[in-house]
Amino acid sequence: MPSYETLTVELGERSYDIHVGNGLLAEAGALIKPVIRSQRLIIVTDENVAPLYLASLETSLKAAGLTAESIVLPAGEQTKSITYFEQLIEQILAKKIDRKGTLIALGGGVIGDLTGYAASAVLRGIDFVQVPTTLLSQVDSSVGGKTGINSSHGKNLIGAFYQPRLVLADIDTLDSLPQREMLAGYAEVAKYGLIDDPEFFAWLERTGNDLCDGNKDHRRQAVVMSCKSKAKIVVEDETEQGRRALLNLGHTFGHTLEAETGFSDKLLHGEAVGLGICLAFDLSAHLGLCPQDDAERVRAHYAAVGLPTSPIEIAGVMWHTDALLDHMQSDKKVEDGKVTFILARAIGEAFVARDTDMADARLIVDNAIQQD
Amino acid sequence: MPSYETLTVELGERSYDIHVGNGLLAEAGALIKPVIRSQRLIIVTDENVAPLYLASLETSLKAAGLTAESIVLPAGEQTKSITYFEQLIEQILAKKIDRKGTLIALGGGVIGDLTGYAASAVLRGIDFVQVPTTLLSQVDSSVGGKTGINSSHGKNLIGAFYQPRLVLADIDTLDSLPQREMLAGYAEVAKYGLIDDPEFFAWLERTGNDLCDGNKDHRRQAVVMSCKSKAKIVVEDETEQGRRALLNLGHTFGHTLEAETGFSDKLLHGEAVGLGICLAFDLSAHLGLCPQDDAERVRAHYAAVGLPTSPIEIAGVMWHTDALLDHMQSDKKVEDGKVTFILARAIGEAFVARDTDMADARLIVDNAIQQD
Repeated sequence: MPSYETLTVELGERSYDIHVGNGLLAEAGALIKPVIRSQRLIIVTDENVAPLYLASLETSLKAAGLTAESIVLPAGEQTKSITYFEQLIEQILAKKIDRKGTLIALGGGVIGDLTGYAASAVLRGIDFVQVPTTLLSQVDSSVGGKTGINSSHGKNLIGAFYQPRLVLADIDTLDSLPQREMLAGYAEVAKYGLIDDPEFFAWLERTGNDLCDGNKDHRRQAVVMSCKSKAKIVVEDETEQGRRALLNLGHTFGHTLEAETGFSDKLLHGEAVGLGICLAFDLSAHLGLCPQDDAERVRAHYAAVGLPTSPIEIAGVMWHTDALLDHMQSDKKVEDGKVTFILARAIGEAFVARDTDMADARLIVDNAIQQD
Repeated sequence: MPSYETLTVELGERSYDIHVGNGLLAEAGALIKPVIRSQRLIIVTDENVAPLYLASLETSLKAAGLTAESIVLPAGEQTKSITYFEQLIEQILAKKIDRKGTLIALGGGVIGDLTGYAASAVLRGIDFVQVPTTLLSQVDSSVGGKTGINSSHGKNLIGAFYQPRLVLADIDTLDSLPQREMLAGYAEVAKYGLIDDPEFFAWLERTGNDLCDGNKDHRRQAVVMSCKSKAKIVVEDETEQGRRALLNLGHTFGHTLEAETGFSDKLLHGEAVGLGICLAFDLSAHLGLCPQDDAERVRAHYAAVGLPTSPIEIAGVMWHTDALLDHMQSDKKVEDGKVTFILARAIGEAFVARDTDMADARLIVDNAIQQD
């Protein structure tokens, strides 16, 4: 029996539901049917996800009297490029979709971000539905309407704010997730506690290992809590004029590390965010903003579930401070030449810092990449 | 002395002014300064426009205490492609623009549409200002927030609704416009009369030749009237859910003709729209919706100013009905498999027709491409 909870992201005429639960893929057709505006459906997925879940989704659509064509892209971060953006759009147009058509993104963050951005662009905007199949995409990228692709200058530098019509997060799909990706997603789950919910972080300290090892109740509870946290912030600030920037905790350092590894499998996005969060707390403690104990508690928890907590744990990468600082200066989060950091006064007390001295950031990076 | 009129496009927090007048380039700095949010300005223009107006714009910005970098792209419709979209964005990012930066589009419709779409995409959206230098862009593409690029499947199939912060239409820049492009823009000017303003069309019948030959008062009046007409419709229906489709008068047939000529110089966009309008009135008359006399009056006026009024006047193109109909089916204006046409009950009484029998459209195309 499917069972799920529903949250609504309240954004006026762009409002949508997020369903989180078990057995949701089997219900997808019935849940999608009320939100679509024409019978033209195209599923976009990748080569890893297609063999696992495409048939289930198609069966479920069929049971609801719907049919969909599908487009299967290569798996991996390289797909989140303008090359695949173009290919995907040309394929969608070749299928003669119309303005009331709907794309269904079935997969992780790469598929969701790319498909959402394609939906924003095709015929200047068609509908899309997110069916995230990774922990990272269930708790982060599928909610909130940030879509986009990477540039040679950095991650997610090309994109649009474009909300889905519906998000279906089926916890059961996490069963097939490699443990490394589970942990990468977990780094973002813990982020919500660190931003403004110390009790949630404390709960994760108790349940995190169980959750990562497969406990479905904990997984579901964590996804629901994460989506609630994210939806709350998105509703307050849809296009990141202010408070939404808190969701970037760990992302200034994290994106820099990812850029330096060429967005490759050496360092997954969630791993980079986890490392970035450790560094953001280090910087906060170094600046005397946050107790050193809190920075250590954050690192200890990430280490306890098995996440890397220092860049030097990443195999096969030679880090260089100058290069890392340079990537930081090209990030989206730069305004009037200043790099924005999300710092913390304590666990659960993150804030947006727009006047951090780059010498302090450099020191933190320098310390972090020492091999001593 | 500069002198100009100002219209406001009322779209809530996305509202903006359109200034239309003479000597506006010299005033650009003073007019742009109040709407920008940071000192990071990048002018995007093309190889034809740069030698004519880039220095004037830079001088004017400098006089207002602003500096801008510039990016000069090749001229022509081929630039409105995903290849140049990517190149432009990478160049903008290489200049380390931030989220409060502004792009200034200096040029015709290609530069305006491409730059606007790049502005929508860079860092998920930065500001942009339109400085249209062709009649077509002054009366049509610079107003209303339709931005985009072409796909191999057709024109403007990839894009976004994204409003500029300001439009500066300097009538003096039309002095350098080749006569063929002046006429192409004129086809869209007359369109506003044909949609819902028969008096404006009658005025154009009296003044059109003078206007095309260089009469600045008439040009200015025509640009103001056109922008007013367009702004009114855009305010009513920003994202083309209904009434805005009227602006597509002539575009269903027009886009098809352009697609068949590969968006080349054989047929300019405005020329295609003019031809398309003649065919839309032919179809309206054929269906008994509109007096035959009105269709003839439209064709006679376009012919009087020197525009082509039949596809067979276009040199070096072999037209094929099947190919033309096929392009029509891939257009953005297809919904639930039906091609949308803008038809007319009379001059100044256009309406959106969603149930046209394609056999009738085929007949009109067939007749139009007969060489006899």
